[in-house]
Amino acid sequence: MINKYTISEMVEASTAAMVMGQTKNRTARAALLQSIADEIEALGDELLHTASAESHLPIVRFEGERARTCGQLRMFAAAIENGTYREATIDTALPDRKPLPRPDLRSALMPIGPIVVFGSSNFPLAYSTAGGDTASALAAGCSVICKAHPAHPKTSQMVATAIQTALRKHGYPEDLFIHFVTQSFDDVKALVQHPGVKGVGFTGSLKGGMAIHEYARQREEPIPVFAEMGSVNPVLLMPAALQQGAQTWADTYASAITMGVGQFCTNPGLIFGLSGPDLEVFKQHLAQKIAQIRDFKMLNDSIHQNFVNRKQAVTGSKGVNILAHVEATGDGTGTPVLATVQAKDFMEQPTLHEEVFGPFSMVVECENKEEMMRCISALGGQLTTTFIAADADAAVVKSILPTVIRKAGRIIYNGVPTGVEVCDAMVHGGPYPATTDARFTAVGNKAIRRWLRPVAFQNWPEHLLPCILKNENPSEAWRTINGQLTRENL
Amino acid sequence: MINKYTISEMVEASTAAMVMGQTKNRTARAALLQSIADEIEALGDELLHTASAESHLPIVRFEGERARTCGQLRMFAAAIENGTYREATIDTALPDRKPLPRPDLRSALMPIGPIVVFGSSNFPLAYSTAGGDTASALAAGCSVICKAHPAHPKTSQMVATAIQTALRKHGYPEDLFIHFVTQSFDDVKALVQHPGVKGVGFTGSLKGGMAIHEYARQREEPIPVFAEMGSVNPVLLMPAALQQGAQTWADTYASAITMGVGQFCTNPGLIFGLSGPDLEVFKQHLAQKIAQIRDFKMLNDSIHQNFVNRKQAVTGSKGVNILAHVEATGDGTGTPVLATVQAKDFMEQPTLHEEVFGPFSMVVECENKEEMMRCISALGGQLTTTFIAADADAAVVKSILPTVIRKAGRIIYNGVPTGVEVCDAMVHGGPYPATTDARFTAVGNKAIRRWLRPVAFQNWPEHLLPCILKNENPSEAWRTINGQLTRENL
Repeated sequence: MINKYTISEMVEASTAAMVMGQTKNRTARAALLQSIADEIEALGDELLHTASAESHLPIVRFEGERARTCGQLRMFAAAIENGTYREATIDTALPDRKPLPRPDLRSALMPIGPIVVFGSSNFPLAYSTAGGDTASALAAGCSVICKAHPAHPKTSQMVATAIQTALRKHGYPEDLFIHFVTQSFDDVKALVQHPGVKGVGFTGSLKGGMAIHEYARQREEPIPVFAEMGSVNPVLLMPAALQQGAQTWADTYASAITMGVGQFCTNPGLIFGLSGPDLEVFKQHLAQKIAQIRDFKMLNDSIHQNFVNRKQAVTGSKGVNILAHVEATGDGTGTPVLATVQAKDFMEQPTLHEEVFGPFSMVVECENKEEMMRCISALGGQLTTTFIAADADAAVVKSILPTVIRKAGRIIYNGVPTGVEVCDAMVHGGPYPATTDARFTAVGNKAIRRWLRPVAFQNWPEHLLPCILKNENPSEAWRTINGQLTRENL
Repeated sequence: MINKYTISEMVEASTAAMVMGQTKNRTARAALLQSIADEIEALGDELLHTASAESHLPIVRFEGERARTCGQLRMFAAAIENGTYREATIDTALPDRKPLPRPDLRSALMPIGPIVVFGSSNFPLAYSTAGGDTASALAAGCSVICKAHPAHPKTSQMVATAIQTALRKHGYPEDLFIHFVTQSFDDVKALVQHPGVKGVGFTGSLKGGMAIHEYARQREEPIPVFAEMGSVNPVLLMPAALQQGAQTWADTYASAITMGVGQFCTNPGLIFGLSGPDLEVFKQHLAQKIAQIRDFKMLNDSIHQNFVNRKQAVTGSKGVNILAHVEATGDGTGTPVLATVQAKDFMEQPTLHEEVFGPFSMVVECENKEEMMRCISALGGQLTTTFIAADADAAVVKSILPTVIRKAGRIIYNGVPTGVEVCDAMVHGGPYPATTDARFTAVGNKAIRRWLRPVAFQNWPEHLLPCILKNENPSEAWRTINGQLTRENL
């Protein structure tokens, strides 16, 4: 038997483990997160080889991804250690206020868990079993039930074992993290719909994310579902920048489009430019570069089949021309493709606005700035949008930026959208269909906030208050006291 | 014609007004909020008389509620003025970092609007047209479409006019706030389901809130719906406190249960105590006090009818006894009732766990602490839970508190749940069915956060960045720069 519990037993065990886990303090939780990172590293090269074999991505990629995964766990550990993340807020009593006295009110964030995590196939380490969703939920003090991704079952099991080892070493109940292996949609539905589940984290396709979201929508009790479902990540080529550096940007984008077989949720899938000789240079140079890039095996058969289908649907659409196409050298490979289309045809066919997951991009040729604006306005929400601009483009950028701010979670200036920095200021999120809740981010320290809710204590004796709300502030957490942010004691 | 727009025109006008409104700065927006408060005050006594006539609540109540409404608007104005609410976060570039350089990343919160607001009938000023949801959404920089509450149409129209006057005086597009008068559920459904609507605020009943939430659930694009739907607000009488002050607490609670004809979402609807002579004293004294309180007309016929129906359903349930009952002196009055039930019967009948909106409360008699714990565990999420406790009760309180923290948004010690302070630390929220998203509050400065989402800027030239993310920080907003909270320039 792979799973020792039924769905109900699993949720009950997870809830009980969370309650037990909360008797330990933040320092213990930070040590647990660090220990999970240590245990993952202790799996050694076998983890890298297993992940590579299951995903067809190279070993060197997993060296980086392991560093990212462990760095993320240690970052969350550091982020929770002083307690600032709990947003402690204290308004002291005003007993003489007229017409009514003000009570003493103190609030702090508390974990909402248990959280169900669905990892992604394209980041078998950094966005799967011990990835960002699991790490941020554990950092928040939640328990986690992680549904193992069927595309990398061995990798997932190895990482789950590392987490269990860390839990044992630190005296945490082992059910604080439950690794759930199933291929059954009924199981997934029953889990998401179980009344004891209080939140869901998902990273993957729009179809997958919305299926999970639909299960959650059928619940009586609404719960937060943060699904990161990828996006087309438009790139806007401004005229002066194109004039100055069409070839250089074409080189840069040839790499960005095909890196990792294009299997990134921030892959640049649409490139908008103004028709003219500079855009011709860019297109031709990009096509040349892409035609020289070899194909590699994609993550799994299902992703490959989707890539083939979507690529056909788009390139077979009215007005779409193929500028570069690489021949397949083996089964299941992602063969890079560059296409082009006129804005008018683009606007008419919504299927062209949707993601083609893989090494694919399409240049959309606009007659003028107004047409480019209409194209951007027609797009759905995005994880990222990129401006390629020179100083002389400032006026155009300024006129488009407010529209882009309404559409995207991250806006890049003269760069590529691939490469998601793990830091405080990162926003890896955005309006639907990029995610199901644009008010949060999946990457960076603020990812923890998804799994927390505030609780206020009114007129409590100090000795019964949670530590973070007592007068003394030994950890020097930043707290808002009577409207002022401070690290002082009260 | 009451409404000048169709639903689609309304949403388009609201979106356009929001975009135009965003060209103004925070100082202008703060001035607008203050001006709305001024204009509401300028309506003078006529507003109080109109609200009183439409709600059957006394003039003196509206003096307080107007002060609360205007105070709230001015508080939000003060809260946004220095920009700290935007949670600006800056991670500066690390060009020499290995293996890859870190880009410059800067993020800040942006408005998500337009927001549709459904006010409540029980706070015709403070939680209706210019109430907490409208004020917080405008403070966030969103536009608002407010569906006028049919129970106080004249009050709503007067307040809407005050808002429009303030918008005109400050050069804002008048559609930044649209007052929508309709009695049609189809209209409401079409509005909530319009793709241009990006968030919903609701205050009212569970039935009403879940109807709105269901409309939103049917959308393709998920949007945040914050519905505050009331709760039963359990009160837990600890044994030592009851021994010391049964009569005093009975006096206090007789007022809390019947104040405002019991028409508060924080009305204490269930009181849990341990069977014994002290609980008998409390019950008898509370029954005596409640029997002396006269009935008053309820807010409207629908609320009165619901009160009568729910009261009958509960008092007609197995094992429920009426301890005090006031005879009606007129039509449509809320006649105070105190009931009692044994915990065993309470546990068996879920209808007893649900709110009776009006001057009603029920004492649940538990055999022991364990039975009280089981009762609390069986309850749904709550806006508030109250402990009545003495020093000698500390051990019992400590054992129950973790369960209560999982259930409630605000936990009161030796007080009453009615009276929701408007301040930074207030949490007026809680797990379902109290609200649809426990991660936010409807009252206090943090209510603004419901209507905001983060956007990150990567490697942008400083002159194109939003002001709050530039190096200079003239408003001295608190910002997180390279992990440190600071008010300094970068």
